[in-house]
Amino acid sequence: MPGFTMRKVTRSSFDDVLARIPELLKAEGFGVLTQIDVKETLKQKIGADFRKYRILGACNPQLAHKVLMADLEVGAMLPCNVVVYEGDDAKAVVLAIDPTQTVAAANPAIRPVADEVRERLGRVLARIE
Amino acid sequence: MPGFTMRKVTRSSFDDVLARIPELLKAEGFGVLTQIDVKETLKQKIGADFRKYRILGACNPQLAHKVLMADLEVGAMLPCNVVVYEGDDAKAVVLAIDPTQTVAAANPAIRPVADEVRERLGRVLARIE
Repeated sequence: MPGFTMRKVTRSSFDDVLARIPELLKAEGFGVLTQIDVKETLKQKIGADFRKYRILGACNPQLAHKVLMADLEVGAMLPCNVVVYEGDDAKAVVLAIDPTQTVAAANPAIRPVADEVRERLGRVLARIE
Repeated sequence: MPGFTMRKVTRSSFDDVLARIPELLKAEGFGVLTQIDVKETLKQKIGADFRKYRILGACNPQLAHKVLMADLEVGAMLPCNVVVYEGDDAKAVVLAIDPTQTVAAANPAIRPVADEVRERLGRVLARIE
């Protein structure tokens, strides 16, 4: 998905990255509000086998409040998704939504907050090895 | 957020719409995988008062599996958000993400599935009064 996400190919296992991400997000003011185990969900619902794949819904409440006050409809693009999946070489790949390409593209008034979120999520990705 | 969402202004209360939405989504093959009570979350985390506002993460597992097989990185835009909030006149407003403007814009190969999701979510909105 060129354009919509930031991406980091790590040298660590899926389980290690998944365990480490909440603290890295917390250091940038994000809590994990939701978590979807895609592998488990696809197995349960339709019996399909899929790789290890987790979608975390990350939220910085101060910044979320700021954008929602500026644009009530921005919640359709919240929380900020951070994805961890197992690559073909068994190393974890991490994706984070780039809000400057989603919410800020839809409403330039919230560009400054989107820039800040992008910087913070970018630092989270940079800190994963 | 023009372009990214479909929108329906209802004649019903927030609570009525919120109670009805899961069955309407189910009729189109979507389960509700996540739910964020934005009002409660903002109150708890930063003490801010906010209107009734709920973000539901809706997922049709067959269609999700199809797009993930076509593009492993599309999970950064999943699940499909459906938002219910209380408008200024106390009537509920419903938003649904338009995947033809998000995932399919990033990857035209998944346009057919995005079109189908858009149609299904459009019918859910049409059935809310």
